[in-house]
Amino acid sequence: MSTPADSSNLMEAIVSLAKRRGFIYPSSEIYGGLNGFFDYGPLGSELKKNIRDCWWNDMVRRRDDVVGLESSIIMHPKVWEASGHVAGFSDPLVDCKVSKNRYRADQLWFAEVKVMVAVSLLQGTVTEKVDGQPVVKPMNAIEPQDQTIGYVSALENERTYEELLEGAKALKRKKQIQGELMEIRPREFTEATEAEIPLIPSPATGEPGSLTAPRAFNMMFQTNVGAMTDASSVAYLRPETAQGMFVDFKNVIDTTRVKLPFGIAQIGKSFRNEITPRNFIFRSREFEQMEMEYFIHEDADWSKCHQEWIEWCRQWLLSIGLPEAKLSLYAHKKEKLAFYSKGTTDIMFEYPFGVQELWGIAARGSYDLTQHGTASGKPQEMFDEATKKKFVPHVIEPAVGVDRILLAVLCAAYAVEDVTDEKGNTEQRTVLRLSPRIAPVKVAILPLVKNKELLVARAKDLHTKLKRKYAVQYDDGGAIGKRYRRQDEAGTPWCVTIDFDTIEKPGDTFTLRERDTMKQTRITEAELFKLLDEQVY
Amino acid sequence: MSTPADSSNLMEAIVSLAKRRGFIYPSSEIYGGLNGFFDYGPLGSELKKNIRDCWWNDMVRRRDDVVGLESSIIMHPKVWEASGHVAGFSDPLVDCKVSKNRYRADQLWFAEVKVMVAVSLLQGTVTEKVDGQPVVKPMNAIEPQDQTIGYVSALENERTYEELLEGAKALKRKKQIQGELMEIRPREFTEATEAEIPLIPSPATGEPGSLTAPRAFNMMFQTNVGAMTDASSVAYLRPETAQGMFVDFKNVIDTTRVKLPFGIAQIGKSFRNEITPRNFIFRSREFEQMEMEYFIHEDADWSKCHQEWIEWCRQWLLSIGLPEAKLSLYAHKKEKLAFYSKGTTDIMFEYPFGVQELWGIAARGSYDLTQHGTASGKPQEMFDEATKKKFVPHVIEPAVGVDRILLAVLCAAYAVEDVTDEKGNTEQRTVLRLSPRIAPVKVAILPLVKNKELLVARAKDLHTKLKRKYAVQYDDGGAIGKRYRRQDEAGTPWCVTIDFDTIEKPGDTFTLRERDTMKQTRITEAELFKLLDEQVY
Repeated sequence: MSTPADSSNLMEAIVSLAKRRGFIYPSSEIYGGLNGFFDYGPLGSELKKNIRDCWWNDMVRRRDDVVGLESSIIMHPKVWEASGHVAGFSDPLVDCKVSKNRYRADQLWFAEVKVMVAVSLLQGTVTEKVDGQPVVKPMNAIEPQDQTIGYVSALENERTYEELLEGAKALKRKKQIQGELMEIRPREFTEATEAEIPLIPSPATGEPGSLTAPRAFNMMFQTNVGAMTDASSVAYLRPETAQGMFVDFKNVIDTTRVKLPFGIAQIGKSFRNEITPRNFIFRSREFEQMEMEYFIHEDADWSKCHQEWIEWCRQWLLSIGLPEAKLSLYAHKKEKLAFYSKGTTDIMFEYPFGVQELWGIAARGSYDLTQHGTASGKPQEMFDEATKKKFVPHVIEPAVGVDRILLAVLCAAYAVEDVTDEKGNTEQRTVLRLSPRIAPVKVAILPLVKNKELLVARAKDLHTKLKRKYAVQYDDGGAIGKRYRRQDEAGTPWCVTIDFDTIEKPGDTFTLRERDTMKQTRITEAELFKLLDEQVY
Repeated sequence: MSTPADSSNLMEAIVSLAKRRGFIYPSSEIYGGLNGFFDYGPLGSELKKNIRDCWWNDMVRRRDDVVGLESSIIMHPKVWEASGHVAGFSDPLVDCKVSKNRYRADQLWFAEVKVMVAVSLLQGTVTEKVDGQPVVKPMNAIEPQDQTIGYVSALENERTYEELLEGAKALKRKKQIQGELMEIRPREFTEATEAEIPLIPSPATGEPGSLTAPRAFNMMFQTNVGAMTDASSVAYLRPETAQGMFVDFKNVIDTTRVKLPFGIAQIGKSFRNEITPRNFIFRSREFEQMEMEYFIHEDADWSKCHQEWIEWCRQWLLSIGLPEAKLSLYAHKKEKLAFYSKGTTDIMFEYPFGVQELWGIAARGSYDLTQHGTASGKPQEMFDEATKKKFVPHVIEPAVGVDRILLAVLCAAYAVEDVTDEKGNTEQRTVLRLSPRIAPVKVAILPLVKNKELLVARAKDLHTKLKRKYAVQYDDGGAIGKRYRRQDEAGTPWCVTIDFDTIEKPGDTFTLRERDTMKQTRITEAELFKLLDEQVY
């Protein structure tokens, strides 16, 4: 819940840059937006495509043991019954009966407000002498004691604790109760007792009595397929791509030459009807996943395989430019795992709003294939030539979201820094230090001037050659320094300036300006292509 | 409705190959499938990705006037009100009240069944002499006359006419009516008069009286966003990607440096709740589109621009290997166009099931931007520096489906042919003549033998080098001829065999075997990379 002091400013700056430079727009913005949905603009769609392509190339094309799949978003509803999603893929939901607002119970916090008050306590009697006569009187003692004066609530955000505390102080003032406010202990609404629920105020009205007990709310979007709109036609938008790999498992082993261990990988959209989407594109309702199911023999060393995939994923994140210092591992506690799970480790990333899950690597045993084998009546088995026995393979599942990677990449790449030019003038530049592997524009081609035919021709010729292979940009608008800044903000790793030396001096060289160091060197066309061939893959 | 005699066999063969080699599976097959949904297997997902990537590279990265976009599948419902989809995106639907089946009225055909019967007609009187006395008798003439004996119906398919005719004959037999059956004239159910509807038999029951009049059925899939499931939360799965470009138009012009004319391109999933999905992946309920909105000045020569885009699209289809002879143009008739449309031309492809629309290129005027400007209250205008006036740009929209292209490509590439080997033996091979641009596997690396260390090492070394850049396959299983056939069926343009000459003779050359000609030549590694660099782009 707590985050560094300037983190919300950093997020604001990133959201603002993302909008301003055409990375990410709110969906349907001219109609006021749609909560939890986002569009990727010209730079964003390139960045997203590059992340997908790097993953696909590394995961599928460059590995001999992984094949690709693209299954449909809408699948037979029985898939989601067998997978357990119809029964169990839900969040705890709380209604406010007055405002009609709805909240996720695990993101609605409350606290009992207690005040330490001075209370007179009867502590027996005391015999005093009054006018020389002994009189028995009650004995009072003023003693401190805690007293509950009500409850406060707040929605989870970066200031939840502060809001609860402010609420508690306000309540004490309102009730005109003397005494010292005791420390508050925030709890999730899921932990509220039956007796407490009517006492907790709704965040919408500030008054208690209107919140319902939490109920399970299924997060799958539902629709109807075909002309009927009754129960028989209900279908779901997939909440994950992974079930496609399980349902097509038999088809893949029957139509390819894969042998254990092998993986089936998929990239595609998934949908979750989050009650409270938040943190920009981190938790949205429509998102894109890159998932892979790696099937192993039931007797294979799953733990070793699990560790190898954790390391593979970590290395992959480094390869697209995420800094090692912002990555960490979190192994889920055994007692919190599903009964079939052998272990799950998350690669965590330090976002501005906190350390959060980026990539989950789960050892799921044979659960999914067994479930579909039972539900479909078609055993999902392989034959072991050695033991002559059939068995259900086990699976290791690395699952990551493209949008979460993209947000991590933007957060890690974003920098505002002071730069000093040759004349000693200092100015600020905003720069996105994106890896050349994923940068939306690989090279900007900048003719120094617009009005020199030979120079412009050379620039256009280079542009034509480069764009056959790479996403490049031709920019002849404005001062060269301004053009560099524009590319810095877009994350373009290199600018190539075609200048007078190019056309007047021997060697046909350009000025290569490197984004991060801002160093300028001279380079030939062949050297430029070699650089790109090495760095962009 | 009519197709070449062996077309259904050809489609069967293609569907079968697509399944057998892992191009396309029915979705959720272990649960009996889901009508109108398909999955793309290991080869299919590569082929599909290659089609997308070629389009994106040619349309976005290699053009200076087109930028990319990825908008969300679920958008604000007002988008679809403004676009006209909520009111008008519907198919005519007919219910059978008895069977509960539903049909698309424009795919349900019927015919009136008429028989030419001999009828005695009173044609006045004639005076005959009977026993010498004149007697006035009625004059009868046996004359042929058509008589309606009922109606027949059939669902649209390759044999619709034959089925209607067979039905007509059966009806005549059943009713035991003498006379000659007249020629039947099939009509769509949408053309049935109110009086005819009760007389037309349901295809499900064969009996008349149960079909309803056609009603409009909206093809957008509907869902609910958020925790409410009432009218306030209704949202739709987009039936086209195009509206994203219109809704984000302002964002794009505000956050990039585009100048008219320019385009916004998008690739993504769309959904249509087709009443009767059919022709394999040609008309499915979940599909992928590649659409581009090309914005031009209101005074620009739209017709010229329209023609240029038609030609661009045609050339692009040729560039990925579709044969020119199977492509044709169809210009929609003026009177069938929407009121705002200036013209639409479809590039048609000769599928085995008939000549069908592949790529529609529509000149839509300023309709869409104007609609969204009005509905959102935010005028979607640009400023003309020359005239100092604001105006709403016009648009040319080339819209194509990835799945339709993929099916066209498979149909055009599929061949079964007799081949004769060096020994004079003739055998059949199945080959997919896919363009190297889109083939799922670019090169297969085949070590001639498995047990020669040096040879295998050379093969693996080549494999490692190639797979950094290309989708390649290493195959050391079985006789070399069998391996060639396997790659022919997968559409792999080249096989490279590492043989004894490679390791024993100078030059380090491999055998390059070309898929279509089956010619074998020797090639060096550098020559191979050059070939790929030229052909795969």
